[in-house]
Amino acid sequence: MERKFRLVLSCPDRVGIVAMVSNFISSHGGSISDANQHSDSSSGWFFMRVEVCATTLPYTLDEFKDAFSPIAQSFNMEWEVTDSAQPKKVILMASKDSHCLADLLYRYHEGELDCEIVCVISNHDDLRSMVEWHKIPYHHVPVDKADKQPHFDQVSQLIRQHDADVVVLARYMQILPTDICAAYTHRIINIHHSFLPSFAGAKPYHQAHERGVKLIGATCHFVTEELDAGPIIDQDVIRITHRDMPADMVRLGRDVEKTVLSRGLRWHLEDKVLVHGNKTVVFN
Amino acid sequence: MERKFRLVLSCPDRVGIVAMVSNFISSHGGSISDANQHSDSSSGWFFMRVEVCATTLPYTLDEFKDAFSPIAQSFNMEWEVTDSAQPKKVILMASKDSHCLADLLYRYHEGELDCEIVCVISNHDDLRSMVEWHKIPYHHVPVDKADKQPHFDQVSQLIRQHDADVVVLARYMQILPTDICAAYTHRIINIHHSFLPSFAGAKPYHQAHERGVKLIGATCHFVTEELDAGPIIDQDVIRITHRDMPADMVRLGRDVEKTVLSRGLRWHLEDKVLVHGNKTVVFN
Amino acid sequence: MERKFRLVLSCPDRVGIVAMVSNFISSHGGSISDANQHSDSSSGWFFMRVEVCATTLPYTLDEFKDAFSPIAQSFNMEWEVTDSAQPKKVILMASKDSHCLADLLYRYHEGELDCEIVCVISNHDDLRSMVEWHKIPYHHVPVDKADKQPHFDQVSQLIRQHDADVVVLARYMQILPTDICAAYTHRIINIHHSFLPSFAGAKPYHQAHERGVKLIGATCHFVTEELDAGPIIDQDVIRITHRDMPADMVRLGRDVEKTVLSRGLRWHLEDKVLVHGNKTVVFN
Amino acid sequence: MERKFRLVLSCPDRVGIVAMVSNFISSHGGSISDANQHSDSSSGWFFMRVEVCATTLPYTLDEFKDAFSPIAQSFNMEWEVTDSAQPKKVILMASKDSHCLADLLYRYHEGELDCEIVCVISNHDDLRSMVEWHKIPYHHVPVDKADKQPHFDQVSQLIRQHDADVVVLARYMQILPTDICAAYTHRIINIHHSFLPSFAGAKPYHQAHERGVKLIGATCHFVTEELDAGPIIDQDVIRITHRDMPADMVRLGRDVEKTVLSRGLRWHLEDKVLVHGNKTVVFN
Repeated sequence: MERKFRLVLSCPDRVGIVAMVSNFISSHGGSISDANQHSDSSSGWFFMRVEVCATTLPYTLDEFKDAFSPIAQSFNMEWEVTDSAQPKKVILMASKDSHCLADLLYRYHEGELDCEIVCVISNHDDLRSMVEWHKIPYHHVPVDKADKQPHFDQVSQLIRQHDADVVVLARYMQILPTDICAAYTHRIINIHHSFLPSFAGAKPYHQAHERGVKLIGATCHFVTEELDAGPIIDQDVIRITHRDMPADMVRLGRDVEKTVLSRGLRWHLEDKVLVHGNKTVVFN
Repeated sequence: MERKFRLVLSCPDRVGIVAMVSNFISSHGGSISDANQHSDSSSGWFFMRVEVCATTLPYTLDEFKDAFSPIAQSFNMEWEVTDSAQPKKVILMASKDSHCLADLLYRYHEGELDCEIVCVISNHDDLRSMVEWHKIPYHHVPVDKADKQPHFDQVSQLIRQHDADVVVLARYMQILPTDICAAYTHRIINIHHSFLPSFAGAKPYHQAHERGVKLIGATCHFVTEELDAGPIIDQDVIRITHRDMPADMVRLGRDVEKTVLSRGLRWHLEDKVLVHGNKTVVFN
Repeated sequence: MERKFRLVLSCPDRVGIVAMVSNFISSHGGSISDANQHSDSSSGWFFMRVEVCATTLPYTLDEFKDAFSPIAQSFNMEWEVTDSAQPKKVILMASKDSHCLADLLYRYHEGELDCEIVCVISNHDDLRSMVEWHKIPYHHVPVDKADKQPHFDQVSQLIRQHDADVVVLARYMQILPTDICAAYTHRIINIHHSFLPSFAGAKPYHQAHERGVKLIGATCHFVTEELDAGPIIDQDVIRITHRDMPADMVRLGRDVEKTVLSRGLRWHLEDKVLVHGNKTVVFN
Repeated sequence: MERKFRLVLSCPDRVGIVAMVSNFISSHGGSISDANQHSDSSSGWFFMRVEVCATTLPYTLDEFKDAFSPIAQSFNMEWEVTDSAQPKKVILMASKDSHCLADLLYRYHEGELDCEIVCVISNHDDLRSMVEWHKIPYHHVPVDKADKQPHFDQVSQLIRQHDADVVVLARYMQILPTDICAAYTHRIINIHHSFLPSFAGAKPYHQAHERGVKLIGATCHFVTEELDAGPIIDQDVIRITHRDMPADMVRLGRDVEKTVLSRGLRWHLEDKVLVHGNKTVVFN
């Protein structure tokens, strides 16, 4: 893969943003390999993502930042520029169910995920062998139901220690405390095994069976302080029938969970997911 | 289409039901053209639908009923047998939005719906010309917001007068009173423009836009006294993006609503939908 | 809908195209409501579509053209700019099957298709009443199997006479002669009832049944001189089972055909479909 | 999972088959947990699959066979009865691409596939570590392009030696010789990375890119002597856009291949796939 700078920005919409940004890039000879814009008419907000071939620019990442900063300021942009040569550091968290973890590890192994998986954290030791086969450190951090704080303290410390950019809750099954959620806004990604907002909370497949729905789904979203209520990155569904008992839904749902989580994570790693309020713009 | 008797039954599951039913049919020379069974392990209930070529049996519909009645009784069956030569009488109810109505009328016109549409009832006069082009009587029954009872009285009377088997709420937009719901259990079909149980009630597309979901859907269900909570017959979804404003969702959703309603109605007309508790078994 | 100018262009890829185009627009105060670009790495070609709020520019359509022309020339662009206030003139052609025609007429009636349907041409008189209900002229132009030329002559004349921008073959079932195909390159849209390139030619549902496929599909494409081989605009599929005989496929396929044709036409009417070689770029 | 006998049969359609079969089962107290029938009106053939709780019958598998044999004979049935307690023996064959192999191994590990994977055969040694982590024997059987016969001889020997019931070509990339195909009719399952019959043979994703299709797919089928032309078990597709180069299609297609192959294999292992001529009946 050719090295890219990825510029991602959002700001109040007005005339001339695209011109200003594209001028900035082309005036230095930058070759744009991908670009997306979106004007949200309901919020009056503008979103943009530009991918530039890094070698066509006379800039390091920091020089790019310095040079672009005045433009960003003049348009009141929230913005970021990343270098594809510096992949994000990712921590995966899991419990006992291995399907999402195994799927992410496999895709990582195949080069589908543009990141560095720095470690896996689990409250059980069951998945150690699978993770270590991939030569990734495995941290078993048990949960004491009577007092979960020590567990979360250790989790926090591991995130800090690894300087993680992204934390993925790959069926981690614990509710993160408010302070961790707040410290890593839009950097913690969860997979919930229902088509939210239906069936938030515990045992969604049983809730779905109870209600008699004809499709079940999964939702990949950023974690916020309110349970299963953060900005949605991706969702998908699969058809079921009256023959499918909760155990069948669990099996069928696994495939949807894997697909949706890996897709959402992939987009996030490539800086294709922009958040505004409680919603996402996904430039996929 | 060859004439068929359709036997539909459900009862507590036990050994020998299929044998008894299929013996009954084959011992009289009946040729089975389609058959489905389902044993629901969670409820211990058994469901069956058998389609027999009517001409291969020495029975009229009433004689079939008389002959089968002892078997049904011995297994404590809820059961019904219908004759495909006697299509169900259907009333369509609509308001101003025409997409579901137009779609059903078109499919009726093409012979896709095995029924007789006896009339259309609407609280507005807007769709008269479209309906009358199909040579179907159109009843404009206005709603007085201050007192809706006269409207519902007239609706009740029309249903009785036409001896309707099925009432389809094709975006009718009024909440039927409890007594009508109770009088026509599992005979009133509604289309709701969301993937229930998400976004029940008013303005579901706006609710969906607000929440930032990535798929929108529609649900076809039997009407019960509780709003948007009856047994689900069919559901489907369509992908949307951040570009789609509520107006786009309305447009995109129309296609899902049409598909789901016509499919659910088609199955019901062919006696393929069995209800148990608040759930359906659909032998499609 | 606000009035828009839609600028659509393609050219050899190089640095500075987006900057030049967006500068041109913003320097005159133009407000961009939608923009898409694509750099095709395999062909080295660049594609762009920009939608500008017409009232924010000091230009008529012709003045826009004059002003943009030098830029277009310097980049060797194939380009076009259209005015949403001048909807394309569309001719629908059909035979006896009405589903695609009825669907397009209904969507037109609902305002989903941004065009003017100037007439319907059919080699049969069957669909006259349906079309005339929509107050659209219906031309019955019979085909003599022994000599089809008079038919095609009359069709050509009607297209010229109505100055049609787009001709839609809504299950027209005749193969257009080479000269008509050549005269209206990328302006004639066909719906083929298979997932091309599988099952080109006659009776695709029977071919599909014969082969035992598990999904059937439909393809919307521009007509070229080679049968069913032109640039594909959109495709979709629907699942079938061993229970589905060709007649069921015909019924199920109708819904896919309707969806795919109306979607492809809609995109074309909004200048979202760019052709390069035998492939399309669809900015939907 | 409760132990089941699975009776699968097909024969010329006539009155009384279901009655005879269900009588046979219920007269011995057999409790049917699942049953499916299909009458194919185009071929006049009847298909049936019945799942009986083994413990409710007074029979071993062999006694069941002996007892049912006269019925089978009287209806000219092709038939088979299997015991879920004797899972099929499966050999997986792969080359260098690991996605289908990894997916099947993972599902096996999770208990999704009701079988015993007796070994993996590959013409490369690359996937040994992954397979051996699952404690499954790995046979590296190299292919000499100048003379492939020794390779195929060794493959044949391994199949015989392991007494394999099913051979799965999980992206094995070699064309099996006629004699192996003939020796294991309807027992060798292949995944082809296109929506057959489109793009049979080599490099289907490149063929798809060349043609400009809007969906790509995968097909799971029984291997016959004619390349990519055997009875289709399952197919699925995924949407692509003009942005997707062949490399993207390869990545996106992997997920479809995994889904379709694992689904097809699962159904085959549960005796849900019946073959008649070049088509399948799938009782899923």
